This record gives sequence, structure tokens and C-alpha cells, in this order.
Amino acid sequence: MAKFKFKVLKKDGYARKGLIETKRGNIKTPAFMPIATQGAVKFTPIELIEQIGYELTLSNTYHLLLRPGLERLSKVDGVSEFMGWNKPVLTDSGGFQIMSLSKLRKISEEGVKFQSHIDGTSHFLTPENVIDHQNIIKSDIQMVLDECIQYPESYENVKKSMELSLRWAERSRIHYTKNKSKIYGAQFGIIQGGVFEDLREISVSEIVNLDFEGYAIGGLAVGEGHEKMIEVVNYTAPQLPEDKVRYLMGVGKPNDIIEAVYRGVDIFDCVIPTREGRHGIAYIGSSSINIKNSKFESDLTPLDEGSDYFVSKKYSKSYLNHLLKIKDPLGPMLISLHNLNYYFNLMTDLGMSIEEGRLDTFREDFYKDN
Amino acid sequence: MAKFKFKVLKKDGYARKGLIETKRGNIKTPAFMPIATQGAVKFTPIELIEQIGYELTLSNTYHLLLRPGLERLSKVDGVSEFMGWNKPVLTDSGGFQIMSLSKLRKISEEGVKFQSHIDGTSHFLTPENVIDHQNIIKSDIQMVLDECIQYPESYENVKKSMELSLRWAERSRIHYTKNKSKIYGAQFGIIQGGVFEDLREISVSEIVNLDFEGYAIGGLAVGEGHEKMIEVVNYTAPQLPEDKVRYLMGVGKPNDIIEAVYRGVDIFDCVIPTREGRHGIAYIGSSSINIKNSKFESDLTPLDEGSDYFVSKKYSKSYLNHLLKIKDPLGPMLISLHNLNYYFNLMTDLGMSIEEGRLDTFREDFYKDN
Repeated sequence: MAKFKFKVLKKDGYARKGLIETKRGNIKTPAFMPIATQGAVKFTPIELIEQIGYELTLSNTYHLLLRPGLERLSKVDGVSEFMGWNKPVLTDSGGFQIMSLSKLRKISEEGVKFQSHIDGTSHFLTPENVIDHQNIIKSDIQMVLDECIQYPESYENVKKSMELSLRWAERSRIHYTKNKSKIYGAQFGIIQGGVFEDLREISVSEIVNLDFEGYAIGGLAVGEGHEKMIEVVNYTAPQLPEDKVRYLMGVGKPNDIIEAVYRGVDIFDCVIPTREGRHGIAYIGSSSINIKNSKFESDLTPLDEGSDYFVSKKYSKSYLNHLLKIKDPLGPMLISLHNLNYYFNLMTDLGMSIEEGRLDTFREDFYKDN
Repeated sequence: MAKFKFKVLKKDGYARKGLIETKRGNIKTPAFMPIATQGAVKFTPIELIEQIGYELTLSNTYHLLLRPGLERLSKVDGVSEFMGWNKPVLTDSGGFQIMSLSKLRKISEEGVKFQSHIDGTSHFLTPENVIDHQNIIKSDIQMVLDECIQYPESYENVKKSMELSLRWAERSRIHYTKNKSKIYGAQFGIIQGGVFEDLREISVSEIVNLDFEGYAIGGLAVGEGHEKMIEVVNYTAPQLPEDKVRYLMGVGKPNDIIEAVYRGVDIFDCVIPTREGRHGIAYIGSSSINIKNSKFESDLTPLDEGSDYFVSKKYSKSYLNHLLKIKDPLGPMLISLHNLNYYFNLMTDLGMSIEEGRLDTFREDFYKDN
């Protein structure tokens, strides 16, 4: 395994400021990962992602397996080089996408059989082969294969699913450990158990026993809402080892992130800033505006006067409204970039607040502005 | 009228190296204008257009009139400020677009009545009001309204059309001159006459009599082909005043531009680098390749190894092929940018060749590589 280290540099309550060191570069935490599912942050040159200051992106094994395929990725230094990023990449194993995208899937003890949503070809993912795939993709951080269950779901079904994910996690760790000398990236386990505290507790204790390089809280941001999500984070995060990275998958809105950082989570990924940005929603201060709204047609003020980011301070709401109306992808790109810069600043502010022991005040101020 | 000056700095045969000076900045000629029809170079942040080195873009009165509309543009410093460009802009009057886009149009001596291709609303353009419109758009260079005729067309019809355009040109110049103190930009006349030498001669002598700030050769690049186009340029360009800018509208491929510069044309606009780029066609050396071609799937070499432009030297053909396949607008944008950089370099090379009196050699070398 290539270099992978994590240090907590400072704590403020449960919240942590830290540093992940990898062969491809360091990542200051708390950190948000822009989504580059298929090896591209949608609509956006990667140079502009780097310029904002991002140090880690997320790609998806399921998508990359289908396109461009492992053969091509094996010929380059993985997806990070392929996309001209050359910085650390985390890859999801594809479990969630199999549930949400593939035409047909069949889950067995062995793994998941599914048909591509693009061309109908059959694929079979196992806890073992997703490790090999992510090794070809050369992820700096690999996620294990797990079963993603819908919300809401009965206690019994969540329990069964969590237990299957546990058995898969064990197989994952065995396969990874056996091949560690050949494997590029670190491996993160995933805590499941839905919104049931006792199931989460079992999952934490079993997964942590497997001694992964880091731990994710999975199975959230699937419709349970902010309150329930934070409740789960509240009792799950503190049980995870202090010296390992904690990752809350698929989260979230700014207030979700603030509350999770407050409870000790280190890294995040979410489609919100880019997907909502592409639909015209821009985050400003403690809320958001929809640039498509006709009242912005004649609003010649900059997207965000308070920002020093070139997109936010230069382009008027009126111009961005025009770009959305003429359906030029430049509009979605610029608003995405604005949001990604907003999220980056949020993470930086959270880190500084922890550094200076004033996270409580930061939270209060954020909600006061709302 | 704001500052508008043109100087020929150096000649090599008929070819000219020059400098246009405007209030918003200078433009080195020979120059190519990226197309920003609706106030945006499609898919592309304007900062990247500036970074390449471009000094002049083209927008379209017809499109801007419909969206965002003159009311909005009157509240900013015109389209250049609206789009965050803040450099010189040339605007076409919209004659060509009325022919090609609008649902219904009726040409009379007075002007053109047409229905918007977007919402069916009725509009009436006259030689006079397109000047007022372009003044609200704050074009640095305004084009007069002319009638655009299809190709091929009979001698009689081309003659009638050219004569109507002449009468419109005269009205244009009268309206412009009367209002000169209030008008921001320079005004260019347009030579018509199809592929008929005697009609072109009449058009040149009448249009030049009106003493515009510059002259365009219009009505070409409409299907007549390279040979016929260059033939028209060959007998038209030398008849235009030496001390005025010469603009070949809607042209063209690299070899069209080289031959027209050779015959004394100074500025150009064309959708080719951006439109073809969006469809995966990249200009390299003296030819082009289609990145969608399956042979590029596994071609990990950079788009153009010989280039020092970040897009061209950094991104592999394989990655760009992948972006086109997943239909992310980033692919079209990157290939557009590569082409725009190619065109910019072509214009720079042409200018340097003229400066050094070796345009003949440059042409020979270009075609030798073909």
C-alpha cells in the first residue's frame, strides 16, 4: 500500500481538524469531495477545481467499470491521471449505484449480479473483485462493497442487510490484507444499520474489529431527513477510533455538514453543490437562491458580492439567469463552481473554527444568519 | 463615436499586419473572432478565451434582441460587460439569422419583419433601428443591415438583392452619421454581389463611397466552396481602401483564412472551431481528427503533443473520447478550446510571417504538411 497517514491536529469538543497524507498529496480535514463520478466533475475543467483549493475528489467504481472500462484505466496511472487531476481520489465501490441505476440486479451471499444501465451487459461484483477493480482505478481510498438498503425499511430487513454487509466487509479485509503489497490505496470500512442505534452499535464494533484505514458512516442521506441523520451520526461517530478518518457518505447540505463535523466527522461527499448548481441553485450565506427565478432577470448585482471568488463576484445574477435561459452549459458550470467554492470555504471556516476553539460560535453565527 | 483607429503596420504582398485601436482595447490583425452569439462563447468561461489571447469577439444583434433583450443590455455597459468580457465586441446586424432562423419573415424596402424562432413574437428590423440596437448593445464595431441571399441564386436575383442592400447601406450611413455623437461604435459596410464579379465591383464602389470605418465581404461561406470564395476575395479585397479594416464574414477553415489573409483580409469570424469542436473535431497541424472515432478510445497520447496549450498537451485523446461518450459538456468545451487556441496561433503565425516578409513560405509549408 502506498503512503496513507492520518493525524488529528486539533480538537474542539468532538470536532477534529486533521491531515491525511497520501502519495498523491495531502488533504486537510474537515474536507468536502467534489464528485467526479465518471472521471469528470460534470461540465467543469478540473483545473478550476484545483484552483478553488480542493485536494480530494470522488469517483465511482460502478460507472468507471462500464465506461471507460478497466482495460483503459489499467494503461494509465488510474483515473486520477486519466482525468488530469493527479491528486488523491476516493472511489465508492458501486453498491449504491447498483441499487439505484442498474436494470436488473440479484444479490447473493457471493456478491451482486447486475446489468449495465447503459448497454445491458452483465457484470458481477464481489467484495473481492471491487478491491481489484479499485486497485486498477488506483484509488487512494477504496470503499468496501456493501449492500445499500432503501429507506424506510423494517428493523428485520435492515438487520439482515447490515449483517450481509458485515460478512462482505470481513471478506473485503481478508482479500485486501492478503494482497496488501500489490494494492495502491487505503481501505475504508462502512458502518450500516439504518436508523437503529443497536444495529449501528453492532456494525461499529464488528467493522472496527477489522481494523480498516478509515471508517465511513453509510446508509444515510437516503430520505431519513436532517434530524434522524444527525441523530445517527451523534451516536455513531464518537464510537469510531479517534486516530482514523471518519467519512459521512453522500452528505449533504451545509447544515448537515456543520452538524456532522461538530460530532466528529472528517470527510464528506455530495452531489448537492454541483447538481443543484446545474439546476440554477446557488448557495449564499446561510441559504440558497434559485437563479432561474424571474426576479433575477433584471438583478445586475454579482452572484455573491461578499465573495472574492472570480465567478461569484464577477457574474451578475441577471447574466447567469440569461445563460440558464439560453441553456448554455456555461451557466450550470459557473453556478456549480460558485457552490463548490462556497463548500470549500465552509470546510476551511470549519477547520479554522476548530483550530481556534470557537466552533460553537461559528455554528451559532451560521444559524443566526439563516 | 468612441475611439476607433486602424493602422497597417506591415505589408507582405497584399497581406497586411495591422492594429485596431478601440476604447475597450487594441486588436492585433490578422485576427479571428470567437463567436459569442448570445453573449457567451458556447460552453466556455470567457476567462479562458481571454487567456488564449483573443482581443475581439462576435455577438449577434438578432439573438441579443430576443434574449436577454435590449432593456437588460441598456442597464449595463452593453453585452461586453454583461458577459464579463470587457474587451471589444463586433456585432452582426442579424440579417443572416433572420434568413436562417426566424419562422416567418417579410422583406420590404423599409426593412425586415420576422417572427422570433423562440416565442413567435413579431419584430421589425430596419437599417436605422439595428444601429440603435447595436448602440444599446454597445458594439465596438457595428455591421449594417443587409439582405442575405441563398446560394446558388440567379444573376438577376443577386443583383436585386445587392441593390437593396446598397440602398439600406446608404440609409444606414445617413442614420449613423446624423447620430454619430451619441453612437458608441464604428460602423462597417458590407459588400454583396454573390459570385458575380461585376456585381461585386458595383457594390464595392458604392459602399466605399459611403466612407465607412471598415468594410466586410459578405454573402460568402454559404455553400459556394473554397475555390469560388477565394476567387471573389481575390478580386474584391484589393479594391477596398488600404487604410480600412477588411472583414471576411463567416470564414472559415484554416486554408480559407490563410488564402484570404494572403489576399489582404484582416479579420474573420466563424463557428467552425467551436461548433466542430463541440462535435469532437480537433484541428492539428494542417488537418483535423474526429475524437469520436473508436481508434482514439485507446490512444493515450495528448490531443496535440506539439502544442504548449494546457488543454492540448495535457488531455489524452482517449480521455476526450471518453468525455464525448459520456456526453459531458466538458469534452466539447475542451476540444473547442483546443481549436480556438489553434486558430489563435494560426493568426499569430500569419501576422509574424507578414512581419518577416515570408508569408509565401508559410503557405507552402502549411500545405506541404497536409
